[in-house]
Amino acid sequence: MSRKKGKLIVISGPSGTGKGTVCAQLLEDKMNDFSVSMTTRSPREGEVHGREYYFVTREEFERNIEAGNFLEHATVFDNLYGTPKDMVVNRLERGHNVILDIDVQGGLQVKKAMPEAVLIFILPPSLSELRKRLEGRGTEDAEKVEKRLGEALNEIKLIGEYDYYLVNNDIDEAVALARSIIAAESARVPEAVKPIIREYENENTEK
Amino acid sequence: MSRKKGKLIVISGPSGTGKGTVCAQLLEDKMNDFSVSMTTRSPREGEVHGREYYFVTREEFERNIEAGNFLEHATVFDNLYGTPKDMVVNRLERGHNVILDIDVQGGLQVKKAMPEAVLIFILPPSLSELRKRLEGRGTEDAEKVEKRLGEALNEIKLIGEYDYYLVNNDIDEAVALARSIIAAESARVPEAVKPIIREYENENTEK
Repeated sequence: MSRKKGKLIVISGPSGTGKGTVCAQLLEDKMNDFSVSMTTRSPREGEVHGREYYFVTREEFERNIEAGNFLEHATVFDNLYGTPKDMVVNRLERGHNVILDIDVQGGLQVKKAMPEAVLIFILPPSLSELRKRLEGRGTEDAEKVEKRLGEALNEIKLIGEYDYYLVNNDIDEAVALARSIIAAESARVPEAVKPIIREYENENTEK
Repeated sequence: MSRKKGKLIVISGPSGTGKGTVCAQLLEDKMNDFSVSMTTRSPREGEVHGREYYFVTREEFERNIEAGNFLEHATVFDNLYGTPKDMVVNRLERGHNVILDIDVQGGLQVKKAMPEAVLIFILPPSLSELRKRLEGRGTEDAEKVEKRLGEALNEIKLIGEYDYYLVNNDIDEAVALARSIIAAESARVPEAVKPIIREYENENTEK
């Protein structure tokens, strides 16, 4: 079987669902790569251009938007952030999977740009558990916790646009299930199955 | 999350691909059940009605065909064999997966009767390896081996109708991948996602 293209895996889910941890563990597999985003925000101390982000001017970012170079982009606190398409495509062509940790709006943009992307939604065990986790962080006051819960519910309402969901009760189980999803997606019969059949026919006629 | 329905998993592949072994190992998982077929052939010594098969008369079998009671049925050496639909549906409703080890023609009948069935095709590493395995059995003469290889190629040509494929190079890897496929299919966002969303909304308004 010739080298298969990698899979583009989008992981989304409300803040507090452990999505970042799931992504970090998936990235320990050497077949899984992350993608470096482009941003207009200034580098913080220790951040390196091309490692944490590609740091660019607003003009350059906007040129990239117009050229259709992003799989998705968004504005966060006046700064622009985006996922450059060419980096992702290069890695997929080399047979690596690319794991994108992005919000639901970004996930939907990616699906539109690359319909073959696999979208995984991470759910907290329940909203009350999510509340507990957000309160447990101790970094958000009661009002902010309520705001985040409302945002979570709005994100969850878009779950129908996603391909898979997993409930993060246990981080190891969640990661194992995400790995199973990636493995299964790599075992899908491709729309164009001609290559598989041709290989068998060639071998058969060569006997 | 309320109890999910099980998945109907069809496993097909040419004779000699190790499909039977894969199914046997999957059936060691207690969430996976097999299905007892109905047949018109006579019971062999030690076979029990309802365990190996449901042994019925040709008339009874044909009544079942007419009533649409089979997911698939076929004639093999003058005997009829079929998979009763009600048994499969009962197990799925109880949340168990049902593993069907059937040929490609049967798999396509099942897909037509239950489009939600998940079809997995097992490929040998290559046709030359398949030839080696068939010859290694020592039970088939050269002519029969050629016939089986021709049949294998004809089955493989229908792989495009299947959802997943796996190459059985190593039985443990093949079984692990089949398990991943079942896990991933159970993590698919259902077409009707309302139940997931409603659960979160109820919980949110109850707070």
